[in-house]
Amino acid sequence: MSEFWNSRIKKLSPYTPGEQPKDKQIIKLNTNENPYPPSPKVIEAIKNAAGERLRLYPDPECAAFREAAAARYGVKPQEIFAGNGSDEILAFAFGAFFESGEKAAQILFPDITYSFYPVYANLWEIPYRAIALTQDFLINISVIFPNPNAPTAVALPLDDILSLAEYLEKQGKLLIVDEAYIAFSNTSGVKSAVGSIKNHPNLLTVHTMSKSASLAGLRFGFAIGNEKLIEGLCRIRDSFNSYTVDLLALSGATAAVSDAAYYEEINNRVIATRERVSKSLSELGFTVLPSSANFLFVKPSKIGGAEFFAALRSRGILVRHFNKDRIADFLRISIGTDSDMDRVLEAVKEVVRG
Amino acid sequence: MSEFWNSRIKKLSPYTPGEQPKDKQIIKLNTNENPYPPSPKVIEAIKNAAGERLRLYPDPECAAFREAAAARYGVKPQEIFAGNGSDEILAFAFGAFFESGEKAAQILFPDITYSFYPVYANLWEIPYRAIALTQDFLINISVIFPNPNAPTAVALPLDDILSLAEYLEKQGKLLIVDEAYIAFSNTSGVKSAVGSIKNHPNLLTVHTMSKSASLAGLRFGFAIGNEKLIEGLCRIRDSFNSYTVDLLALSGATAAVSDAAYYEEINNRVIATRERVSKSLSELGFTVLPSSANFLFVKPSKIGGAEFFAALRSRGILVRHFNKDRIADFLRISIGTDSDMDRVLEAVKEVVRG
Repeated sequence: MSEFWNSRIKKLSPYTPGEQPKDKQIIKLNTNENPYPPSPKVIEAIKNAAGERLRLYPDPECAAFREAAAARYGVKPQEIFAGNGSDEILAFAFGAFFESGEKAAQILFPDITYSFYPVYANLWEIPYRAIALTQDFLINISVIFPNPNAPTAVALPLDDILSLAEYLEKQGKLLIVDEAYIAFSNTSGVKSAVGSIKNHPNLLTVHTMSKSASLAGLRFGFAIGNEKLIEGLCRIRDSFNSYTVDLLALSGATAAVSDAAYYEEINNRVIATRERVSKSLSELGFTVLPSSANFLFVKPSKIGGAEFFAALRSRGILVRHFNKDRIADFLRISIGTDSDMDRVLEAVKEVVRG
Repeated sequence: MSEFWNSRIKKLSPYTPGEQPKDKQIIKLNTNENPYPPSPKVIEAIKNAAGERLRLYPDPECAAFREAAAARYGVKPQEIFAGNGSDEILAFAFGAFFESGEKAAQILFPDITYSFYPVYANLWEIPYRAIALTQDFLINISVIFPNPNAPTAVALPLDDILSLAEYLEKQGKLLIVDEAYIAFSNTSGVKSAVGSIKNHPNLLTVHTMSKSASLAGLRFGFAIGNEKLIEGLCRIRDSFNSYTVDLLALSGATAAVSDAAYYEEINNRVIATRERVSKSLSELGFTVLPSSANFLFVKPSKIGGAEFFAALRSRGILVRHFNKDRIADFLRISIGTDSDMDRVLEAVKEVVRG
């Protein structure tokens, strides 16, 4: 606390990112990073961009990326916004689309979800309501949720999302679907809502390169939605920091969005590993929520979540534990390589069998 | 305008960054970029970082950079904040240190200054007062200004800044000095306030790698000030986007801050070119404000600013013109290489002589 802080930051409860261990021996399965490297084309594009032209400002329009992504997703470049990670885009979206102040309409999100949402709401002084996932969604306020959800890994079918979008559109309300993990879904009926943005002017989809494109270190995210929503994001960005995406990130992200084949292959490997580990953990007596993401949300049968976290940690395996109501007995385990996960299963067996 | 925009973004007047011409033949002197390339050590560091470890999140603490910068500036790592350009840091500072709302204490900045300041103030709904540069500063509200100032290039001596810091400290008010251009000062008495942050808990200095480190394309800035001020910036960052600096930017910036010798040499070249061009333009009848920056703010004697801008533009030279009261007859010309500036002087002579 300091006399120079304003009332806003005194009241904030900032987000705490997952631990970044210094010890390189640790198997790091706590922040849902992809275990496979980025596409060689991405590395090549970055190395080519790393030269004298760094002395010039990057393109504030991110035109090259938006054109490549438009081709990939079958939308117009004006329907795409590029940002410094999907976290930045979400911060902008909260600042651009939801009213601040005690009398404002509320925003709704699931009570068990990405823990940054209430932080954004507090930053912009936006009233919010967090409801249990099972409760009926159909109320007259704007809605945001991740699909698949985090940290549960559970996904909603596209049909349900489009019904909700249609309902909210009639009320003049927005639906933001955070699709950070959608590339890892092989569940029937679950797929990206990107193809439906043309039919729903109130539907904004948010994407990240951190997980499915193996580029957590690059800080690149993008949003796809109606042109007017994208224009809203640009307005707040240009009141904040006109160039949020640097030349290297732009070059790498453009190469990544153009190399669907490489990423499909590595992400299919992640899915296969997830299915195998999910089965093994179920057999060991764990509750395993059905996962459409690159992580599992699991509850051991005879030991608490915090205790299990510590037991894995002492065996050199770092996963994520949330000390929160309703999920304190669960662990979130990112899917690593097959050999990482073999070590996890061995450690789990040791702990379970005492 | 869209029904989904909130009242905040409807009211915003976003900042307009300088034009990024597609035509590579144009001599681009409109955004104060450095004409010389970044240090070879920076390029090497970035290429080394461009590899498999991009799959992992970057260090949210930016520890390597903060340690290197602490060594360079003789401060503690906890007195340093790293961000995605100094624009991001300024946006955070406005959000962290100045009160919002009609009844809040005002913030003060010069009326002729960086045109992003009123945009930040509007974003956070902070009342502000912009006063003429010559007016007495001594009033009881927080103050922010660039030193050297932009777009005027004129700098205040450090003694004046420290007197103001001391005065404001007694009132419990903050002083932010934006030192984007300080490396280009060779004016007696003008120097960075970084060495004085230990004596002034209300003094925050803001720095960028875009100009003096030839890294506009990398998006990297930093702030140096009292630990409590840095903690305030961290709180708002962690309510916005925990990792705003990517791995490549972090690697490049760490190498840049450690290579003072290279940058001193290229920036001295910029200073020498500036002095020469300043003298030539004065001889051609221009009013040239005394510059401590890598640009000149000049007024032609017999032709308006807009007209002169167009005349240069038609000769393939892009500079910056601000269509604003009191400075509409001035042009801001970034200092390029000696051969760029020779072409500028030739074009100027053509225009002046008709």
